[in-house]
Amino acid sequence: MGHGGGGALSAELVEHVFAPAFGGPVLSALGDSATVRLGGARLAFSTDSFVVRPLFFPGGCIGDLAVNGTVNDLAMSGARAAYLSCGFILEEGVEVAAVARIAEALGAAARTAGVEVATGDTKVVEAGHGDGVYINTSGIGLIPDGVDIRPQRAVPGDVVIVSGPVGEHGVAIMSVREGLEFGAAVESDCAALGGLVDAMLAATRDLHVLRDPTRGGLAAALNEIAAAASVGVVVQERAVPVPPAVANACAILGLDPWYVANEGKLVAFVPREHADAVLAAMRAHPLGAGAAVIGECVEAHPGMVVARTALGGTRIVDLPLGEQLPRIC
Amino acid sequence: MGHGGGGALSAELVEHVFAPAFGGPVLSALGDSATVRLGGARLAFSTDSFVVRPLFFPGGCIGDLAVNGTVNDLAMSGARAAYLSCGFILEEGVEVAAVARIAEALGAAARTAGVEVATGDTKVVEAGHGDGVYINTSGIGLIPDGVDIRPQRAVPGDVVIVSGPVGEHGVAIMSVREGLEFGAAVESDCAALGGLVDAMLAATRDLHVLRDPTRGGLAAALNEIAAAASVGVVVQERAVPVPPAVANACAILGLDPWYVANEGKLVAFVPREHADAVLAAMRAHPLGAGAAVIGECVEAHPGMVVARTALGGTRIVDLPLGEQLPRIC
Repeated sequence: MGHGGGGALSAELVEHVFAPAFGGPVLSALGDSATVRLGGARLAFSTDSFVVRPLFFPGGCIGDLAVNGTVNDLAMSGARAAYLSCGFILEEGVEVAAVARIAEALGAAARTAGVEVATGDTKVVEAGHGDGVYINTSGIGLIPDGVDIRPQRAVPGDVVIVSGPVGEHGVAIMSVREGLEFGAAVESDCAALGGLVDAMLAATRDLHVLRDPTRGGLAAALNEIAAAASVGVVVQERAVPVPPAVANACAILGLDPWYVANEGKLVAFVPREHADAVLAAMRAHPLGAGAAVIGECVEAHPGMVVARTALGGTRIVDLPLGEQLPRIC
Repeated sequence: MGHGGGGALSAELVEHVFAPAFGGPVLSALGDSATVRLGGARLAFSTDSFVVRPLFFPGGCIGDLAVNGTVNDLAMSGARAAYLSCGFILEEGVEVAAVARIAEALGAAARTAGVEVATGDTKVVEAGHGDGVYINTSGIGLIPDGVDIRPQRAVPGDVVIVSGPVGEHGVAIMSVREGLEFGAAVESDCAALGGLVDAMLAATRDLHVLRDPTRGGLAAALNEIAAAASVGVVVQERAVPVPPAVANACAILGLDPWYVANEGKLVAFVPREHADAVLAAMRAHPLGAGAAVIGECVEAHPGMVVARTALGGTRIVDLPLGEQLPRIC
């Protein structure tokens, strides 16, 4: 299971099996989406398969997750999603009413994100060879002129901003999957971030890196950026916003909220001179109201993420080996 | 199972569940791929999930099938595939060696087709919720200027050409799945048709319709075109090339080769004045060596496909209700 978790085992599978077999120059860049040129246009192109369990969870379902996940991958290169494809793998015996509810959620999420579902496909597999509904979405969008956002562009001095509190999606899934109650209910933060990114780009076109901390959470996202750009990242532990209900749930379950998936948050690496303007633009947007500066990019310890604790100590924030919570998206 | 078979039940699911939920103007056009405009470029965009069983079959495996299937969907609008996405859903416990073989076949097929795998995703599901490997590919390609190929463009007078003998892919899958032997071995015709389409476009840019007869076979492809353009189609039964080994296997299994899936063939509707030139161009290409005129497009019986039998009679060629062979691609 670890090979699909978005952590170190996933990276191994990509590096040792997939990349040698079919990796080209674009795939090797390894962002959330690929940047390709076609007919003179610079496009972002991304794909994601969704196998979340259960299909319906507090704050969303696999349908809106499938739209927002791919829209967000495109947004992380500054592109506004224009068209989505949608491939359903249905398990024989799944209720048509459930499929219809999922399709409706998918349609509503697409309208909210301003993206059109342009092409689709449906396959059915026998009972025992699926799990109700799996959905793949792929998306394309135009990258605005003058925008060049990718993990490799992180440089020492960049300010690290997170768009809001972390850990909600993973805890929401876990609570319904395990039938647990944590006092206050936690809902998934599932949302499309294209509008928030547009607002940030209005503050400056010179955003260096954007990443949505999904599988592997904030810790994986920061580690991937540190590795891609060969820079160090220092995070102030107390600056990372974690909702109390998420913190409680994680304490009970033995999870670390920094490693829990989000589906409506982003991490930004922003040149110091633009950080205030970008933070203000984020806080003025509904999906960035809880935005906070959580750290900075440094020259020291390239490839490594370090947290400064409340007590003045430091600890290394590792790339997770696998996923704490399988089938989170 | 019928809802995923590409026949009438599939059409119902799309029409009554998916289209009302998230269908927009592009999806409603319902070709093998969507035509979208982005940054001034006219692009074809397509998606397909592959759930073929078994993963390896005579003439190919799920890896090259996943490339060729999507490359061909793009080619059916005249576009040369430029970039593919690739999403794997792995079942826990699948052998890494099998995944590696599939990845290598996928890479080799992409190189043959001249398409780059630009972005990917991997998910792992528990044993009993998948079947080894499922793959989704989506693709984008540029549609050349002056080219407008879509089902709605079929008009009475068009000559109907098939690029070679039909039924091989489905029979190859069936033979290995059921452990049957049919005398001569039948291999899948799995191949990328972009080069063949380029050769046809060099003969004339005014191709009206192209369709790859995959699920539901030749019969489904002709019916979809007849319905989309509100035209009649007349096929000369004896003109449709069926390899003897396919005919024998179908006789034993009670299948009709016209309804059996192909993965390296196309059907073309071509203006009569260009038919000879297009046929010659096809026959000069390795993947069109067995091309044949099989019928014509007529004003009579719009939406209906009719076969003229060897004995001078006629019979209606229906849209299949489901798929004769589930999980063929």
